[in-house]
Amino acid sequence: MKNYAWSVLSFMDEWEKIEYKPIPVRTLLVEMKNLSELMIDLAYSSALFHSHELAEDVLELEKRVDTLALLLKMNIMIAARDAKDAKDLLGVSLVSSAADKISDAAADIAYIVLHGIGIHPAVREAFERVEERLGRFRVKANSILAGKKLRELRLASRIGVDVIAIRRGKDWIIDPKGGDKILKSDVLIARGTPSGIEELGELAKGTLRELED
Amino acid sequence: MKNYAWSVLSFMDEWEKIEYKPIPVRTLLVEMKNLSELMIDLAYSSALFHSHELAEDVLELEKRVDTLALLLKMNIMIAARDAKDAKDLLGVSLVSSAADKISDAAADIAYIVLHGIGIHPAVREAFERVEERLGRFRVKANSILAGKKLRELRLASRIGVDVIAIRRGKDWIIDPKGGDKILKSDVLIARGTPSGIEELGELAKGTLRELED
Repeated sequence: MKNYAWSVLSFMDEWEKIEYKPIPVRTLLVEMKNLSELMIDLAYSSALFHSHELAEDVLELEKRVDTLALLLKMNIMIAARDAKDAKDLLGVSLVSSAADKISDAAADIAYIVLHGIGIHPAVREAFERVEERLGRFRVKANSILAGKKLRELRLASRIGVDVIAIRRGKDWIIDPKGGDKILKSDVLIARGTPSGIEELGELAKGTLRELED
Repeated sequence: MKNYAWSVLSFMDEWEKIEYKPIPVRTLLVEMKNLSELMIDLAYSSALFHSHELAEDVLELEKRVDTLALLLKMNIMIAARDAKDAKDLLGVSLVSSAADKISDAAADIAYIVLHGIGIHPAVREAFERVEERLGRFRVKANSILAGKKLRELRLASRIGVDVIAIRRGKDWIIDPKGGDKILKSDVLIARGTPSGIEELGELAKGTLRELED
């Protein structure tokens, strides 16, 4: 199992240097919270689908949460000028720790998958509700999604699906906005109704070629 | 901040005796997972609404998760008879630890509320999506919900709301089924669309007296 020491170690293995950047505390916290929730769903899905890819997504996101946590710590230090600020920012610091703990729990589940530990029927049952509400699809070059902005596609109102993350090579766009464009080869992670998720899969594969209103 | 020592201590303070009961591993695991997810949403809501009641709900559920974790450990020990069983059940044990960690994270957030630590705007922003999708309502005696089975009410199809937990005095019914009846004074915890949640609140209060199809 991963523990904190391991986490710091793996972090240092990659020699990623953490540089202070002035980023609003709220931006960092919102991203940490959204990521940690996304990671739990991805981790459950990775266990259900025996998906090493999803499990590795989770571990990658965990590193990102760790980085965000360090950036947040530095920005909190600089933001706090007096006792009142310190008290106000204490809650931010505690919520950030909670998000970090949740992201660790997601990583623990991803390790089960990556270590080839079998998925017991009890685990399957515990996770199976997620199966219906989450999808991960790579956008084929001939998909009608490729090259479109999310705003144009109006997936939420048309098929009841929200794209909650886009993985583009090594980059992640978490909680993409209407102006964000889907490119071919992007991996979309979406949440929605079972039928909507299925439809999105077909749109991404290119087997479904139109979106009805 | 709560840590493990504290948790065991508070547990022992109440002299609750843990007795082995033969409960299917899957039942325990499904409940732990559902509870831990519910707790995260309740914890976020408690922070948003500055609600001590919700925060105390979270701490109570955390004790329940701790108890479930211990029962699960015992049932896993007894279920495992050979090396193959042990390997199969390892995943269950790891998922249970992850659920426990998530429930701890939820309790950490509840502590912020109970310690009167202010909710910084950044925290508010991080949590505000939850506000719209979760409600906690006490059922008044004159509410049309009182005395009805969930099945009769068909809240999901009529107003887009799922009752995910019912608190009845010190008891909790998590993930209630169609045959479960709502009683007056029950506290309903529900997830759904913003308008549906609002409607459910009015039904519980008794200000709205009918449900349309």
